[in-house]
Amino acid sequence: MMMLGRGPDARDNQTRQIRDAVSNVEKHFGELCQIFAAYVRKTARLRDKADLLVNEIYAYAATETPNLRVGLKNFADEFAKLQDYRQAEVERLEAKVVEPLKSYGTIVKLKRDDLKATLTAKNREAKQLSQLEKTRQRNPSDRHIIAESELQRASMDATRTSRQLEETIDNFEKQKIKDIKDIFSEFVTIEMLFHGKALEIYTAAYQSIQNIDENEDLEVFRSSLHPPDYQSRLDIVRANSKSPLQRNSSLKFSSGMVQN
Amino acid sequence: MMMLGRGPDARDNQTRQIRDAVSNVEKHFGELCQIFAAYVRKTARLRDKADLLVNEIYAYAATETPNLRVGLKNFADEFAKLQDYRQAEVERLEAKVVEPLKSYGTIVKLKRDDLKATLTAKNREAKQLSQLEKTRQRNPSDRHIIAESELQRASMDATRTSRQLEETIDNFEKQKIKDIKDIFSEFVTIEMLFHGKALEIYTAAYQSIQNIDENEDLEVFRSSLHPPDYQSRLDIVRANSKSPLQRNSSLKFSSGMVQN
Repeated sequence: MMMLGRGPDARDNQTRQIRDAVSNVEKHFGELCQIFAAYVRKTARLRDKADLLVNEIYAYAATETPNLRVGLKNFADEFAKLQDYRQAEVERLEAKVVEPLKSYGTIVKLKRDDLKATLTAKNREAKQLSQLEKTRQRNPSDRHIIAESELQRASMDATRTSRQLEETIDNFEKQKIKDIKDIFSEFVTIEMLFHGKALEIYTAAYQSIQNIDENEDLEVFRSSLHPPDYQSRLDIVRANSKSPLQRNSSLKFSSGMVQN
Repeated sequence: MMMLGRGPDARDNQTRQIRDAVSNVEKHFGELCQIFAAYVRKTARLRDKADLLVNEIYAYAATETPNLRVGLKNFADEFAKLQDYRQAEVERLEAKVVEPLKSYGTIVKLKRDDLKATLTAKNREAKQLSQLEKTRQRNPSDRHIIAESELQRASMDATRTSRQLEETIDNFEKQKIKDIKDIFSEFVTIEMLFHGKALEIYTAAYQSIQNIDENEDLEVFRSSLHPPDYQSRLDIVRANSKSPLQRNSSLKFSSGMVQN
């Protein structure tokens, strides 16, 4: 009596609950997939800008004095290496996070079809079971025997399909939690690998910058402005401008006036 | 003679060399500024996507079984914390790398005006000096004395301005190397601070994911599909469907047929 009265409601409720659970996973895994993909794309854009930075530092370094040139070149070498690791990060995230989430869409669809078939069978059998119960109650006559055997078969089928549905949804849930744990663990591992490399590389890059000897470069810059032959010419000019004063002592007075 | 013949060329060459050096710094610091700014913007875009990811993980976690919910929520908490550090990274890079490079444009302009004035004075004085030399050589008469005193003053002025120019360009070079070292060191320090925090935070985030107990969640999911009153109704139905078989032994044959 209770099953006839409230059974179908409970079944509908359970059916709805399972369908909602699967749709919910489908929806959220889809959104996670899109946002992770966007995160990976932005990481790739960041790598692009870092590559431009590497090229510009090389270009600038080439125009500079030796110490600055070497320091900046070494920095750019290290920074370029980091971008290779960022590229590896992008490819790994694509393969281990975005792709599994994307293919999960297909998996969820297949599992939903699976579930739908099982749910349909379960509902059909449950209806048949309650139909037979009604027949049995209305006809306690000779048709009773056939009804009883059909009732028994329907009952066993319903039980078997129920167990099957339970297994299907159980596997779905188990797989889902496992996949989430796997995907998020992969994400963290890939990111940590990159951040660890970044620390290592920046430590070397920092030394490249700190090692730039400004005084040596300053000397180089100065001597580039005063080539040796120019310097000697300057000495000749100075000697020339002094010599008249030394040669003619009568100039001492007038030169003294100018100096005061 | 050498100065009259090749001096102006050497001076022009030096002037061009200094101007080129300053223009080169202006050009490359400008480009570095733009690319660093783009790098910072892309980092901010990455943070935006990560923020979306945080929100989506919270939204999904809210729909899930307790262990998954807590695990994902803890992960999102950690990941959100990392985005706060990324925001700090963005602000620090803006303040310590992009701004100094941007304001360097103004500094370079001022220094270039400075250099231009000094170079102009130096060139004017050098011309005056060579003019006086010519006058001295052509007029060994009474105007010679005035010419000699003017020559001496012009020579001293040229020497003083030369020294001034040397100091100006020296300071410019010194400041430039110091600023490059400072800006790149700040860049590396800010990035390392972020990567260090990332490693720390991801270590905690990894634990949040690993700690998710799938078996406990599976039990919760199962019992949510079979509420206690439904379970008891199911038992009643099973008892009802079994009772006719137990009551009527004549059904054994037909039920056996169904089972084979």
